[in-house]
Amino acid sequence: VKQVRVGLVGLGTVGCGALNILQKSAELMTQRSGCEIKVVMASARDLTRSRPCDTTQLELTTDPMAVATSPNVDVVLELMGGTDTAKSVVEAALQSGKHVVTANKALIARHGNALFALAAQQGVQLTFEAAVAGGIPIIKALREGLAANKIEWLAGIINGTTNFILTEMREKKRTFEDVLKEAQALGYAEVDPTFDVEGIDAAHKLVILASLAFGMPFNFEACYTEGVTKITQADIQYADALGFRIKHLGFAKQGAQGIEMRVHPVLVPKTHLLGQVDGVMNAVLVKGDQVGQTLYYGPGAGAGPTASAVIADLLDVVRLMAAPSAAVAPMAVQDSAVKTRAAARIDQIKSAYYLRISAEDKPGVLRGITQALADESISVEAMNQKAPANEGQTVDLVILTNKVVEASMNAALEKISQSAGVLGEVMRIRVDSLN
Amino acid sequence: VKQVRVGLVGLGTVGCGALNILQKSAELMTQRSGCEIKVVMASARDLTRSRPCDTTQLELTTDPMAVATSPNVDVVLELMGGTDTAKSVVEAALQSGKHVVTANKALIARHGNALFALAAQQGVQLTFEAAVAGGIPIIKALREGLAANKIEWLAGIINGTTNFILTEMREKKRTFEDVLKEAQALGYAEVDPTFDVEGIDAAHKLVILASLAFGMPFNFEACYTEGVTKITQADIQYADALGFRIKHLGFAKQGAQGIEMRVHPVLVPKTHLLGQVDGVMNAVLVKGDQVGQTLYYGPGAGAGPTASAVIADLLDVVRLMAAPSAAVAPMAVQDSAVKTRAAARIDQIKSAYYLRISAEDKPGVLRGITQALADESISVEAMNQKAPANEGQTVDLVILTNKVVEASMNAALEKISQSAGVLGEVMRIRVDSLN
Repeated sequence: VKQVRVGLVGLGTVGCGALNILQKSAELMTQRSGCEIKVVMASARDLTRSRPCDTTQLELTTDPMAVATSPNVDVVLELMGGTDTAKSVVEAALQSGKHVVTANKALIARHGNALFALAAQQGVQLTFEAAVAGGIPIIKALREGLAANKIEWLAGIINGTTNFILTEMREKKRTFEDVLKEAQALGYAEVDPTFDVEGIDAAHKLVILASLAFGMPFNFEACYTEGVTKITQADIQYADALGFRIKHLGFAKQGAQGIEMRVHPVLVPKTHLLGQVDGVMNAVLVKGDQVGQTLYYGPGAGAGPTASAVIADLLDVVRLMAAPSAAVAPMAVQDSAVKTRAAARIDQIKSAYYLRISAEDKPGVLRGITQALADESISVEAMNQKAPANEGQTVDLVILTNKVVEASMNAALEKISQSAGVLGEVMRIRVDSLN
Repeated sequence: VKQVRVGLVGLGTVGCGALNILQKSAELMTQRSGCEIKVVMASARDLTRSRPCDTTQLELTTDPMAVATSPNVDVVLELMGGTDTAKSVVEAALQSGKHVVTANKALIARHGNALFALAAQQGVQLTFEAAVAGGIPIIKALREGLAANKIEWLAGIINGTTNFILTEMREKKRTFEDVLKEAQALGYAEVDPTFDVEGIDAAHKLVILASLAFGMPFNFEACYTEGVTKITQADIQYADALGFRIKHLGFAKQGAQGIEMRVHPVLVPKTHLLGQVDGVMNAVLVKGDQVGQTLYYGPGAGAGPTASAVIADLLDVVRLMAAPSAAVAPMAVQDSAVKTRAAARIDQIKSAYYLRISAEDKPGVLRGITQALADESISVEAMNQKAPANEGQTVDLVILTNKVVEASMNAALEKISQSAGVLGEVMRIRVDSLN
């Protein structure tokens, strides 16, 4: 098994998240990539700080350049943020012939052209899935999944802070200032929220998406940027009355006058999926000439989601380092790791249930049904009696149950179907809140 | 430039779709992959049929085996469907040392284990993105984009026909039988609709997703399958009253008793994104231990979407054939194809607009505003006058306009802000229906 040595620049939330995955899911990472991936070194400004990750096995330094140039490191994960030092660090790593994985949207949007030229010259990879929309694999979708398509346009909710603010303003009728304070308290917004609320963070991401969509150099200066600070409660209510939600979107589009890159508030139809993306979640809608519209939704920030994208990039890099056997494992893990797993029978699953019972409209029927449920310790979440049109003495009883093992439900249904006054077969549909 | 020779097995909707992309977007495909991709050969049952694609440059045959074993073919696209002949064709192609791209869900779900073993033995690739959820790159997401994650569960709307039927039943209060007939007339459902409405097609796809999620051999027999034929109009209405939509879902889940694989109707909350996926669209929700929930949405069938996935697979295969320089082009096209594109200025874009104008509540004010809009040929889609609480003589005028070039809107806004009775700045937000 080939061993790959990783150096971490930055041990903040995302750095620790990435370290945790590589340590705690080490076996899965080897199964995915066919290589053993070992974090050997890390840099952080303050080494004395307590952190939610185990750095005891690592060579630690306060100097990011030491990681970037270390002969013991094959791949550098740049997770420090900022553009000045980060740029020097990434340049040094590329110049040292190391592959680099970054989560740094500002770095790519502002200095990506020079950095990719350097990477190409050095014959190494520079990857950046985590720079846009956190855990959503949107870069991979644009570069690979949708590669058969000419991209016509894309539109995305790519800043969680502004989406959280607009969602709270709408749902709780709160003011912009009030929600911003809460977002800061929750850690969704920085102490200086300008980057988020004025749309600069979203513009960095949009510029990256636009360049991939249209095969052009990054051009941050050409992006029109407008924030959410002027949106009032009245606007949100008026938009709602007209059938719209106000969302802060990034657009990249082949327009009549050239490529449009713009970040600004937009009224979108309530019924559109993008109108339903609430809170800190992100989503990107892409229109391709072949596939039509596809949408990618998920968390746009946070340790787990961002580290998920960083590690996905790392696994891609690692697979290529092991080339020519660089193909993705067909079953998502190496063939040797594929194994038969016990399959659950359907009567072993746990689910809530919707029941529709046709019954005679007379005393005692309900008691028989509820007794059958109680016998199997099934509790009822909601019950409604419905009188279907033109059915005389028959009623529909609609019951929502709490979660129960399906075998118990089957036993209860058996009793219910034999219960006095119950007519025909009971309709049973499983209920899932998908969370 | 390396040349790759492709053989097509099947010239139906998807086969022609794939051929069209490879011919009409040939330059883009070379920009994406760094190789020249040429379709050299194709098989079809009836060569005399007229088709929506140009086969004049191809060697044509009625014998799929001739394509599978041709010395002139490097990669075979199996787009014929069915499991018997298709299996023999794919086996023959793999045995001849050719890579195979297939869209055949039944083939993979039922014979995938043997086929992947054969592909591994031959050192070639067998890919199948198009087998699940059409144009949505969900296989790539599971194998690569989410590779840092242990998958906890996934749930998907993976059969467009049943989703169309359930959507029409709910929206138009039609019966199952009635909508099924329409689906057949529209070509969404086969003459024998059993595979779709009994959930077998969804089960094929779910089994594939489950095996990738949990790293286990395909096990179609272990999948619990229940269709939508028993769902009545009453169930849909009762579910709606309780806050739910009925969707036909595939679930793969690590449960207490083993891996659950099940396809059946489910009540899901109306407010959940999956509850909002209507018509023939597909969507897959995936829960990973690091990233949390991500969702992938798009068209599940059709020539363009399915061919989009087939060609994405082909480009992956082609890149690896050109290894060791097998890295994905960082800018989605080869560096030599990256070029600066004209950028549109924000006043050149075309958009509909929402305007909120604070004005005095007196005669003539509205005339000044509508005159300013008319002067710039801006037509009004909707107009409402709102009286904000406690504001005396002031009213809010809310206007939705039709699409207009932003420069015209800017000119109109200039006039409106100087118009008699208009107070303060006009609030302007762009409106987009995202279609």
